[in-house]
Amino acid sequence: MKVKVLADILGANDRVAGENRRLFRDNGVFVINLMSAPGAGKTSLIEKTIQALGDTCRVGVIEGDIATAADAERIGRTGVPVVQINTGGACHLDGNMVRAALGEMDLSALDLLIVENVGNLVCPAEFNVGEDKKVMLLSVAEGDDKPLKYPLMFRESSALVINKTDLVEHTDFDMEKARRDSLSINPSLSIYPVSCRTGDGLGGWFGWLKEGVAGAS
Amino acid sequence: MKVKVLADILGANDRVAGENRRLFRDNGVFVINLMSAPGAGKTSLIEKTIQALGDTCRVGVIEGDIATAADAERIGRTGVPVVQINTGGACHLDGNMVRAALGEMDLSALDLLIVENVGNLVCPAEFNVGEDKKVMLLSVAEGDDKPLKYPLMFRESSALVINKTDLVEHTDFDMEKARRDSLSINPSLSIYPVSCRTGDGLGGWFGWLKEGVAGAS
Repeated sequence: MKVKVLADILGANDRVAGENRRLFRDNGVFVINLMSAPGAGKTSLIEKTIQALGDTCRVGVIEGDIATAADAERIGRTGVPVVQINTGGACHLDGNMVRAALGEMDLSALDLLIVENVGNLVCPAEFNVGEDKKVMLLSVAEGDDKPLKYPLMFRESSALVINKTDLVEHTDFDMEKARRDSLSINPSLSIYPVSCRTGDGLGGWFGWLKEGVAGAS
Repeated sequence: MKVKVLADILGANDRVAGENRRLFRDNGVFVINLMSAPGAGKTSLIEKTIQALGDTCRVGVIEGDIATAADAERIGRTGVPVVQINTGGACHLDGNMVRAALGEMDLSALDLLIVENVGNLVCPAEFNVGEDKKVMLLSVAEGDDKPLKYPLMFRESSALVINKTDLVEHTDFDMEKARRDSLSINPSLSIYPVSCRTGDGLGGWFGWLKEGVAGAS
């Protein structure tokens, strides 16, 4: 009985996500679903990405949070279109929530849409929102044991950005272990160690994004 | 329909949690449900707590994780009884999972039981497992915006441990803002800034625990 209910939820979500996906394709927009634990730096990564790519690429952002519009306000300061979704209690975004946000966004005016999911290493990975690629962000402050402990998100993602490398010397984080364990779960994962604070390593990430945008247009 | 299902799940969970609670009381065990985002340092805090209190207080631990027994193995090295729950995909512990773990644990031989929940700032706060108190752990690396963005966990918790204060000088974390926003959500929250790495500030947290243990016996 429980399984049946779950299957219905995920099946219904997949149908809505498929409709979103068609809308994105019709408009030639490359869409990423950006996921991480709380406080890994999703909004900072989006800010840096807009600063770097905003001149050559039309970026839009959908922000997902349990409560507040704090992240949308931060992104709004960069001047790109942004819509905030407040999920109430829900711990992830789903296809319906993103579809509702699309009513507030002109897809024909975008090349890249970044959907920032609710901070959570578990449930967001189960729900497609219609994205081209899932991307996950891991902070070195969280520890190098996360790939093996939260395998689904590493498996579902196409790119892994490892943020806050400026803190690595103050932690026990072992970059090689994180890399090795992530690739053992998902051998095709593209991995970019970066520091949004210093800018270190962001070039590789921007390159990955630009390739996706070029492929979608 | 959705709401009905959710009500059933939470209602059924509360009944099981109530049975766990009676078991804990009958055995005079003080039980905390320790929650945080992934990588905030729950297992490190438990290790430090066992080192500090283990001589005068009989401690047991239930570890909750999506996958692996890594945390239970860490705790096992301290010599205290520990049971690992692997939730599969589930992003939180519930009353039934903890009840199942209790079959492997002699409550009459314990003064303090620490239940380490799955790393997640959202769903764990919705499910009682029969604990006396919920405790949440926030890492300064996650940022000082978390109380307003994840209010339920701050509201449900009795104590807030703010970990990794040794990193505070390398981040933008504003301790006074975190404290103020947490108390605006939950004025009776006891707040302990600590560093599990340096040991700084742990005394206050140990005192809060000892008081709970004394009250339960």
